[in-house]
Parts: sequence; structure tokens; C-alpha cells
Amino acid sequence: MAASKLDQVIALAKQRGFVYQAGEIYGGSRSAWDYGPLGVELKENIKQQWWQTFVRGRADMVGLDSSIILPKAVWEASGHVETFTDPLVESLHTHKRYRADHLIEAYVAKHGKEPENGLADIRDPETGQEGNWTEPRLFSGLVKTYLGPVDDAAGLHYLRPETAQGIFVNFMNVLTTARKKPPFGIGQVGKAFRNEITPGNFIFRTREFEQMEIEYFVKPDEAGQHFDSWVEACLNWFYDLGINPENIRQLDVPEDERAHYSERTIDFEYRFGFQGGEWGELMGIANRTDFDLSSHTKASGEELSFFDQAAGERFTPYVIEPSFGLTRSLMAFLVDAYAEDEAPNAKGGVDKRKVLRLDPRLAPNKVAVLPLSRNEKLTPLAKEVADEIRNGGRWNIDFDDAGAIGRRYRRQDEIGTPFCVTVDFDSLEDRAVTVRERDTMQQERVSIDRLFGYLAERLRGC
Amino acid sequence: MAASKLDQVIALAKQRGFVYQAGEIYGGSRSAWDYGPLGVELKENIKQQWWQTFVRGRADMVGLDSSIILPKAVWEASGHVETFTDPLVESLHTHKRYRADHLIEAYVAKHGKEPENGLADIRDPETGQEGNWTEPRLFSGLVKTYLGPVDDAAGLHYLRPETAQGIFVNFMNVLTTARKKPPFGIGQVGKAFRNEITPGNFIFRTREFEQMEIEYFVKPDEAGQHFDSWVEACLNWFYDLGINPENIRQLDVPEDERAHYSERTIDFEYRFGFQGGEWGELMGIANRTDFDLSSHTKASGEELSFFDQAAGERFTPYVIEPSFGLTRSLMAFLVDAYAEDEAPNAKGGVDKRKVLRLDPRLAPNKVAVLPLSRNEKLTPLAKEVADEIRNGGRWNIDFDDAGAIGRRYRRQDEIGTPFCVTVDFDSLEDRAVTVRERDTMQQERVSIDRLFGYLAERLRGC
Repeated sequence: MAASKLDQVIALAKQRGFVYQAGEIYGGSRSAWDYGPLGVELKENIKQQWWQTFVRGRADMVGLDSSIILPKAVWEASGHVETFTDPLVESLHTHKRYRADHLIEAYVAKHGKEPENGLADIRDPETGQEGNWTEPRLFSGLVKTYLGPVDDAAGLHYLRPETAQGIFVNFMNVLTTARKKPPFGIGQVGKAFRNEITPGNFIFRTREFEQMEIEYFVKPDEAGQHFDSWVEACLNWFYDLGINPENIRQLDVPEDERAHYSERTIDFEYRFGFQGGEWGELMGIANRTDFDLSSHTKASGEELSFFDQAAGERFTPYVIEPSFGLTRSLMAFLVDAYAEDEAPNAKGGVDKRKVLRLDPRLAPNKVAVLPLSRNEKLTPLAKEVADEIRNGGRWNIDFDDAGAIGRRYRRQDEIGTPFCVTVDFDSLEDRAVTVRERDTMQQERVSIDRLFGYLAERLRGC
Repeated sequence: MAASKLDQVIALAKQRGFVYQAGEIYGGSRSAWDYGPLGVELKENIKQQWWQTFVRGRADMVGLDSSIILPKAVWEASGHVETFTDPLVESLHTHKRYRADHLIEAYVAKHGKEPENGLADIRDPETGQEGNWTEPRLFSGLVKTYLGPVDDAAGLHYLRPETAQGIFVNFMNVLTTARKKPPFGIGQVGKAFRNEITPGNFIFRTREFEQMEIEYFVKPDEAGQHFDSWVEACLNWFYDLGINPENIRQLDVPEDERAHYSERTIDFEYRFGFQGGEWGELMGIANRTDFDLSSHTKASGEELSFFDQAAGERFTPYVIEPSFGLTRSLMAFLVDAYAEDEAPNAKGGVDKRKVLRLDPRLAPNKVAVLPLSRNEKLTPLAKEVADEIRNGGRWNIDFDDAGAIGRRYRRQDEIGTPFCVTVDFDSLEDRAVTVRERDTMQQERVSIDRLFGYLAERLRGC
């Protein structure tokens, strides 16, 4: 049931132009996905809400946008060159490669316990044959490239696997120019790249993806309390934008599963509804201690610490890191918003409808303007109405005059448009239109004069 | 004189936290730059203005966000693998590498004519010695990487050197799901990567940069008129956001200098004030004909064309491409906004001041709240005022209570903040503050009650 909802959402996302397979006409790539006209608006809206809540909206935060490609030295100091690896195994039946830890996770999800003899108990996922696996070998998740005229060690660079390091290496720059002092944080939104062995589950695990990360710098002995308040702030952000609390669970990651730098990590998992294990990681909050600033101090020779004038002491801040997957958040918002209910049809009965109950702040289109039919009088008036709303605000506005009005309502419901504005023959006389709300399907007659104000009141904060 | 203005802007951008050198603590990289707290806000604001003007604000446009890494097949079809090359030469004096075309351009800018004997006439730029150059060889500007477990031909991918191809390969996806028909366009903002031989001139030429691109699909016989209207629309965008028309010039690129796909190209150059040639390319508008859609049709086997039902005919649209450099636009807005004038000082005289006269829509901070001095009564009230404005809108708000008020005004002028709000001892009594406007330096007393409304009126569209 849950899995089938996910399939419905994925089908809708592809069909309506939220997400396309990258390089589809060339057979497609599993490495990445492209965001279509609706997907890019949804993603932009999520980003903006995040930036507004966590960066612009807070006196203790500033933003940053650091580069994707950074010299090897950065990734050596951060520990990524050495430890950012996954255990790769190959099935000797099919010669396909898998992550050993994922095979074991899938076994646990299915059987409710660890496999007694490790990989030997795990059957080939494709053929079902008794497992015949190579020894796991460590495989680097870093995506490398060469800059400059020759592909040599001097030109070797890595694409960042997380945006965080760009923040750490700029710590002193920000401290000095923005004149902040702990507790304060730096937020960043951007692409990251990981050479995943097995990309999959739609946009959940890809080689190219987007993150929204905060590195929050605090006094070491205050790290615990800041950690707790970030857990709350992050949860509230998802709840406020409409995620059902029942679909998020917290996982206090045990020590042996935490990243090497982390003193504590809480993962938020979302109930995506995957087959064989419904939940998937949505974001994590880690107490990275002073690992990163200390490592970069040591490796670069630049002192990355803070002198507290009031206390007369120098300290290396601890870092609380709330790290959000942007593309995973987008997927969660889509899954959470998806619903099926019934809508009245033209024959006096009811039809099934699919509806995305997205928070209006996230909805790709805020308003769709629909002439009752394509007509030489209705279409121009409807275009006029659409232009007026479009020019008045910063909303994305759709216009659609193709097909029966009922089908057009269904389409707007499916893509989560909060308001449909219908221009009918009466509109030519009374200069009024019908405004229909997505969730209640209630309709109200509003004069064109007051239309913008009417919508602005209902789309506050959009 | 002009060159020195550029130096001033670069110094200010570094000092105030607009732009940092990437990987600076590790000796820095010339490949890329990082955008600090003010730089990221300015860049975000430029992006949003562009998106609002050209995507959300137009009924004939939709957005897209395609992936950075695309399979090799895409870049073979687009012609990039074969032709996206620069002529590389090496000076036998210093063994440094240069782009032959840049050396010749610099010669022309200096001497007003082409070198008679080609490279032989060009002296070593570093030592001034008579030129001694290797034969030019073609060097690929594509940045490559490998995905998957083995660095082999199957894993070879390229980072996009332009966002455009991601639009072309999604042409049918967008046509179908957004149900558009020519003339219509697709806009995209994102990173692109070029393995430049000689990055330089601050953020002007880097290996990692950002573009804002539009591919506008039209009937072949209407391409000319759409080309002209895009030239006008792009110019107007820069003018409307405050660029002085005298600092932009148009260059109708002659056939032998145009890209292989282009039937016509107009470059906009901005007067950046570089040494040895003041002007630099800001954006280009090209008529790419049906080159891209036809090439991808041929290479992929997917028909990328449009069937015009009204006319009963199928055609492959021509493409008009306005391609903006986002990072270059940011640099142009900074240079254009930079001015020096005089401001009254505390002694009744005048001081020189630097001011960024950025359009308020672009300014990184919209308002700075400044208590007259750091004080147990003024500071809390000022923070309250700052919070109130911060919560009321979507503006980035600064708060600064360190140092003399005059120096704090200077700092806000330098970073282009349109309004400073000063909380003084009278404010404790009369619940009013002084609002100072950046350009006129005029001050007005405004009650705290009406402050948000007062600012909102003056920051309309921000």
C-alpha cells in the first residue's frame, strides 16, 4: 500500500514535469535527475523557505556559496580522501556490484535480524541464487576531476561530496568580514557529488544532488544545548511546511555507525515507502566537535579559532551541523502531499481525484487561470486576468485553455495549485471570476478588481 | 583611472566579504571563487530578479534545472567534444601557458592593429622578452570526470561547459509536460565548468562559474524578429537594475568569430576597466538556428521537432539564446554601483566616502539597525527593532553596534545598504528612530510603529 503510493507519486512527478531522467533521450543516466518546469519551482520554493527560516530570518546566521571543486589538500585534511569509502562487493553470478552495507540493511529489514554468517547468507537480489560474493573492497565515493592542461597529481581536484568543507575553510573569512562571534552559523545551499555504487530509488540516491547545510559554531561546553535546539528547529521547519509528524522518525545513531568526526548524530528518517524498508534518511544533525576546524588548522597552518575578548580566552568552536538533503526534502514533500479523494463531476456524481496538498508556499504554481472554454472572447479576457496577477506579485501563474474544464481542474489539483480562477461567459458581463480552492474545492465569485487582493491575502508569505 | 576603480571594487569585495578566493587557507585556487555572506545575497538577488523577469514574469517561459554531469553522448552530439577547444601555446622563456587568441587580442587592444607576423610579434607577457612560442595546439575546455567503479570509457562523463545542452535534450519533455508551443522558451540558472588555460581577472574568467540561460524556440522564419526583441529585453534588464547604458556596448560578432552553430551573435560587453582593454564580455545572444535540436535528433534517434496543428506542418524550431554570465553580471553590478563622494563628518567638515549605489532590489542588506552606541538600554531596543523588521519581510537585515556611528554608516554605504536605522537615547522616550537613506544621506525621524510600513513602501519589489 505504502509502496504503491510512492509509485503513484513517482509516476505523477514524471508525467507532470516535476522530474525527468537526466540524458533521457540518450538512454538516460541513473546518476542524476533533471527538474522540469514544476520541479524547479518546487525546489526553488523549498530553498527559499529554508534560506528565509535559517539564514535571513535569524540574527545569528549568515549565508555562503563556496565552490564545488576544491583542491585535494582540503579533502585530505577533512579525512575524505582516506575514509570516504563504501564497501563494494560483486555478485559472481551476475557480475553486478553492490554496497555490502546496503545488502545487509535490506536483509535486516526483511528478516528482522542480522544475517548470521554475514554476506554468505544473502542471496543474489536479481537471480535469487544463493549468494556468491567477492570480498568487500573499499571504494572511494569522491568524484574526481583534473584541472589545468595535464591530467596529473597537480591537477587532481575533487568535486565536493558535502558542502560543509567549503564553510570550514572559510571560517576565518566569515568571522572577520561578517564580524560574528559564537554562537553563530553559516548556511549554504548547493550541489554535491558522490560516486555512489548503486544510485537508485528515484531521486533518493543519486550521484549529483543538492544539500542545504548549516555549520553552527559554539563554545564546546554549550554544544549539547545547541544540538537539542537545532533538532527542534529542524523538525519544526518540516512540520510548519506541512509534513505529517507521523512520517518523520528520529534515530540516535550509535557510536559505531557514526562518522569518524561525530560525537553525536541524530538522523531524521522519512517514511518514503520504499519496498523492503519504508524509511529513508532525510537529514542528519551532527555534533562534529572541533574536528574540522582543528584538522584544517593543522593541515593549513592557519589558526581557525576564536578569541573571546570578554572571557580573555581562545577556543576552537564545536560545530553543530544540521545537514538537509534538498532533493530528498523535495521527494518527502511530494510524497507527503499526495492524496486521493473524490471530486464532483459534471454528471452530478463523483470522480476519483489525485491531489497534491502542498503548502501554498511550496506549490509550483500559485494560481491557474482557466477560461471556461477556448473562445475568442474568453481567452483574451482570461489572459488579461493572468497577466494582471503575474505582474502584481512574484507568483508563478499558469494559464490553460485546452480541454474540458473538469480535466483542467484535475490537472491543477495533481500539481498542487492552490487556486484556480475560471473566466466564464458571465465574466464578460459582470467582470467577475470564480475562484476555486484546491483542498475544499469551494468556489467563490470575486470581481476582477479585487482578485489580486483576494489572492494576496490567501497567499500571504508566498 | 578606470583600472584603478576596478582595483578598488575588487579590494572592497574581498575586504567586506562579497568574494573570497576558493581554498584560500591552502594557498588558494585561481579556478574558482567563493561568495561570502554579502556576495551570496547579491548573487541570489540577481538570480531572483532574472527569474522573475524572464521566467515567472512571462507567460511564454518556463524554468528548468538540469544536471551538471551529462553522458559523453550529449557532448559528442552537441559538437563540444570535437570543437570546444582553445589554442594553447607555451612561452619557451618561462614555460607558462597562454591562450594564443588572448595574446593576440591583448596585442590588438594595445596597438590598435593585428600583429603582422602573428605570435612572432608578441613579446613574453611576464619577462618582456621577444616572443618564443610553441606551435599552438588545440586544448579541450571540457572538464571530465569518471562515474562508476572504474575509470574507463563507459564511466567518462563531462561537466557541462554551458547549461544550454541540458535544455535541448529536455526539449520534448518540456513540450509535452508543460504543453507549450513555439514561440516559447526555457530558462535555467546554474553552474558550468570550463578548463580555462588562464583563469584570471578576478571572477571574470574562472573554471567554475554560473550562467543564466534562455533557449527560446521559434518558427525559423520568425527568428530574426525574436532575436531583436531579446536584444532589447536583455539590455532593458541591465538598465532597469541600474547599469549605466554608457558602460555596455554591443558587438555584432563577425561570421569567422562566431561559434560553429550560430547564424548571428551579438555580444554585450561591459566596461569592467581591465588593464590593457577595458571591456569584457558580459553576455551573448545567439541565433543557434536548428543546429542543436537537429544534432540531438540525429544522434539520439528521438525526433526533436514540433507539429503545428493549425498549419498542419512539422518543423524544427530555431533557437534564440540569450546567455548571461551570472558571476560576470555580479561583477558588472558591483563595478557600476561603486562611487566615491563626500559625507559630512562629526567635526562639521566632510570625509571622503565609498558607496555602492546598488539598486535596492540587489542590495545584500536592505536595512541595517544601529544603536547609537553599545549600551544596555539602546542595544536591546535596537535588537527588538531589527527582529521586528526581519520577521516582517523577506529582507536581509544587518545589526551592528561596534564602534563609532560614523564608521558604521561608512561601512553600510560601502556594502550598499539602502537604509540605516539608528536607535538613540531619544528613542527610549519617543519610540522613534532615525532612518538614513544611503545615496542622499538624508535622515528622517520615524516612529517604531510605522517603521516597517515606511521601509516596505521604499523597498517595494525587494
